[in-house]
Amino acid sequence: MILVSNDDGYLANGVRELMKFLAPYDEVVAICPDSPRSGQSMALTFTQALRVREVESPVEGARLFKTNGTPVDCIKLARYAVLGDRNPSLVVSGINHGSNSAINVIYSGTMGAVFEGCALGVPSIGFSLTSHRDDADFSGCRRFVDMLVPSLLEHGLPDGVCLNVNIPDCHPIPTRIALTRQARGAWTEEYEKYIDPQGEPFYMVTGRFDNYEPDARDTDEWCLAHGIASLTPQLLDRTAPEASLPEWLKHEVSVQI
Amino acid sequence: MILVSNDDGYLANGVRELMKFLAPYDEVVAICPDSPRSGQSMALTFTQALRVREVESPVEGARLFKTNGTPVDCIKLARYAVLGDRNPSLVVSGINHGSNSAINVIYSGTMGAVFEGCALGVPSIGFSLTSHRDDADFSGCRRFVDMLVPSLLEHGLPDGVCLNVNIPDCHPIPTRIALTRQARGAWTEEYEKYIDPQGEPFYMVTGRFDNYEPDARDTDEWCLAHGIASLTPQLLDRTAPEASLPEWLKHEVSVQI
Repeated sequence: MILVSNDDGYLANGVRELMKFLAPYDEVVAICPDSPRSGQSMALTFTQALRVREVESPVEGARLFKTNGTPVDCIKLARYAVLGDRNPSLVVSGINHGSNSAINVIYSGTMGAVFEGCALGVPSIGFSLTSHRDDADFSGCRRFVDMLVPSLLEHGLPDGVCLNVNIPDCHPIPTRIALTRQARGAWTEEYEKYIDPQGEPFYMVTGRFDNYEPDARDTDEWCLAHGIASLTPQLLDRTAPEASLPEWLKHEVSVQI
Repeated sequence: MILVSNDDGYLANGVRELMKFLAPYDEVVAICPDSPRSGQSMALTFTQALRVREVESPVEGARLFKTNGTPVDCIKLARYAVLGDRNPSLVVSGINHGSNSAINVIYSGTMGAVFEGCALGVPSIGFSLTSHRDDADFSGCRRFVDMLVPSLLEHGLPDGVCLNVNIPDCHPIPTRIALTRQARGAWTEEYEKYIDPQGEPFYMVTGRFDNYEPDARDTDEWCLAHGIASLTPQLLDRTAPEASLPEWLKHEVSVQI
């Protein structure tokens, strides 16, 4: 059984198309937030009541549930409250309305569900299309699902590694995909300042992504900018390798043992 | 100027103690959630109005602000809306009421603020004490702040690397600290099922952490279980190294280019 989730909510076209693309491969069960939860990263809910309700599925034979939780809650609820003793053979999240390349992966709710699947020991993959439009055309994404899902079901993935696929919203959608790494870069945020009717200030975030290495051809950003889909393998473990540590730190700590 | 945040909220003892410990080193500005935001990971707010209000500081000469945002929002708001053109020399998050070792680092709001500081190019460190008690005694944590903060201010950290310090709540708090990696392990969640007054079901999460390698002496969990504080360096970039990829995946993708 393939477990599906997303962060744009159960009504989003992206997840409904994804369910269709996956149905030929195995039984599909989707558990999605009941409203958009973009930017929720790996947030989880542990002081609120979580509700799960089955809704009409857009795909015959598949099941669709909505919850008031985050994408991570969706995966945990699926595994431990909804699916009983059945363990999914694959977790697929998306198709996200918008890119999850570069640093966006750490803020992404779509990828939050993927990392959670990975934490549960299930091969996990996220798909994103670089269009935020509600009516984006996802049909061209199907070839990447068809390319990767059979192998994932057959071979799985190494423990602690999951996959992040980003697809440029070109017309037509490209057929090429490259193995990439996250481009280095950052968001320069700006906050618009407003005054509410009571005279109190509030802020709304806006921002611009700066790619620090626009010419690096092995990055997700370079591929997307050049009409090529990107596949970035991602690590669950965040321990920095010892080679990346400064000498003063090794000294400071080791002398204390 | 040292920028401080946390995920337990501006009223938590942990952050108030931390402000005191940091005050001798530089000007301290703290921006914290107005209510507990544990488990918020790197969630950020971009459809809601964010508010920031200065409140009475527990430390003379330091400033304290509260916001309705997440820990990541706190750091972004500080950098781009509150501090003007001033860039912090250090981001310090915590002291968290509870451990952020092993896989907990990816769910942690405390560490979310640290990763956000790292994304902004500022040396960043999180401190956590393995006690969830509101009245936990943080005084013994001071030695680890005194051990690390002067060097961080002097030398900084490599780009994309930040630090995660976990301190066992022993009596007395230990003086030893070791360089560690995240222990492999996972939460086995259980959901208690309840019925609300309207007869509708809801769930509350509970769970148990399983350490998959309890005898690995180089892990954060081993140190904490043996009365030693742990320092785990963490990577912002989540790209998996090519060596961790299965052959089928390299083949599947490379033939498409």
